[in-house]
Amino acid sequence: MSRADWIAVDWGTTRLRAWAMDADGSVRDEASSGDGMGGLSRAGFEPALLRLIEPWLSGGTVPVLACGMVGSRQGWHEVPYVSIPAKPAELRPVPVPGTDRRIALAIIPGLSQAEPADVMRGEETQIAGFLSEAPDFDGVLCLPGTHTKWARISAGEVVGFMTAMTGEIYRLISDHSVIRHCLAGDGIADPAAFTDAVSDTLSRPEGLAQRLFAIRAETVLRDLGPGTARERLSGLLIGAELAAARGYWLGQDVAIAGAPGLAAAYGAALEAQGLAPRVLDADPLTRKGLAAAYLSMGQTAS
Amino acid sequence: MSRADWIAVDWGTTRLRAWAMDADGSVRDEASSGDGMGGLSRAGFEPALLRLIEPWLSGGTVPVLACGMVGSRQGWHEVPYVSIPAKPAELRPVPVPGTDRRIALAIIPGLSQAEPADVMRGEETQIAGFLSEAPDFDGVLCLPGTHTKWARISAGEVVGFMTAMTGEIYRLISDHSVIRHCLAGDGIADPAAFTDAVSDTLSRPEGLAQRLFAIRAETVLRDLGPGTARERLSGLLIGAELAAARGYWLGQDVAIAGAPGLAAAYGAALEAQGLAPRVLDADPLTRKGLAAAYLSMGQTAS
Repeated sequence: MSRADWIAVDWGTTRLRAWAMDADGSVRDEASSGDGMGGLSRAGFEPALLRLIEPWLSGGTVPVLACGMVGSRQGWHEVPYVSIPAKPAELRPVPVPGTDRRIALAIIPGLSQAEPADVMRGEETQIAGFLSEAPDFDGVLCLPGTHTKWARISAGEVVGFMTAMTGEIYRLISDHSVIRHCLAGDGIADPAAFTDAVSDTLSRPEGLAQRLFAIRAETVLRDLGPGTARERLSGLLIGAELAAARGYWLGQDVAIAGAPGLAAAYGAALEAQGLAPRVLDADPLTRKGLAAAYLSMGQTAS
Repeated sequence: MSRADWIAVDWGTTRLRAWAMDADGSVRDEASSGDGMGGLSRAGFEPALLRLIEPWLSGGTVPVLACGMVGSRQGWHEVPYVSIPAKPAELRPVPVPGTDRRIALAIIPGLSQAEPADVMRGEETQIAGFLSEAPDFDGVLCLPGTHTKWARISAGEVVGFMTAMTGEIYRLISDHSVIRHCLAGDGIADPAAFTDAVSDTLSRPEGLAQRLFAIRAETVLRDLGPGTARERLSGLLIGAELAAARGYWLGQDVAIAGAPGLAAAYGAALEAQGLAPRVLDADPLTRKGLAAAYLSMGQTAS
């Protein structure tokens, strides 16, 4: 049975992940569940967390440091956003009052931008994790996912960011729209269909509305295969996102951190535009960001 | 109990509608059900139709004329598309073999376009209904709905068309995405938010990906109300569609036929661009198109 010196928690809309940590930032154990913020009432957060971390608790009070939607208005405890420009490494975790005595919970605040209006919760900690290993990075970090974030980073600060709902819209169209029939079944991977589609909506973003239904029409009229149709849909949506984010990546040093397949797709799309982005696995970044925040709290306290 | 001289049927993905018709094209009775193509196996079509029209059948064989997805590959009987240019008023209904002896079913073919690839089933009959009352129309007919069609019409022919999935994507985002929380609840109607959003994505279609998530961000940061959020979402998507369809409406005589609220929204969007579109209720058009096709079959036979 592992005891934890402290516990790191990544609590998003659909997942709850926790790590039993050593004082020096190394991982002793990990656990996760489907108790995301989206499925919990306010009273449900503490029991959901305790179910997961109880084996790691000792007699005393264990520090728990969390990030993500757990700090939103619909979360356990609302933690106000910090306005950019802001240094992710210097965000002060906000203590949550009235918890079980065995834990001392604090939540890292998200970031907000006034114009254009935008918000993030959780990604600020991924960015902190990225910067803990690349403190001198000056460029743009792209975090593809359900809601892809593009963050402009300079001197350790987030100076601007934008969000595109590309992943969520891809999932909705794939699962629920008339196009779902065109995507079902086995299909040969077709990377050229992906890059062609990216270049299509990137150069003519106004064509998106028509190009989506053309997937259906070409399936009916020309037996477009499901492998090609999937690449086409992904490429059209990522191309439209790259058109929206052009001011972020054009002429910049870009790093991409995401799930490997998705990050590679964004990488290929940007390479086709002449960039040479670094492509990283995002998985360890949140944990590294939480560890960096914990260690800096200790330094402040001592 | 009304008997029918013939029966008109509009059979789409989600609805089945039927009318008991007089020989001269007037309506004696009507009925509808939720037995759309999407929920039926091939063997389910005939029973679903008979359940609805049985009260109208007499001792003999009654002609039944249908249009819509009932003629698709997933329908009752696949009827090949007719390539454009084509006159909707001259499409020849295709007899369906092996039906119950009390009915003689024929299905009106849909239209296809080779480049850009596009298809329609059902709208060709709405267009025929429109042209039966405006035979000299030379311009563009917009049929907003789940899949909005834009059709260029000249000398009674469809010479080009495009489809935008705007209605379906609006529904998916409203029902399933993170933005659904921003749209829930009462809200004051906000027509200015609609026209501003139309003009936003029409002039900068590349901004769509970012502007969608801004609805969420402004709800969180600035208490954007649900009435304004709904108008904004609708306007952003219709503006993106108008950008894709610019070649259809710019400098053209445009008529819009749809459900009244939706058709009025498209009308307002085009008026803001300096057009003066006719706005019509689409509801009677399919039935008028079926009646025109039935009457011309009689003329051919006599």
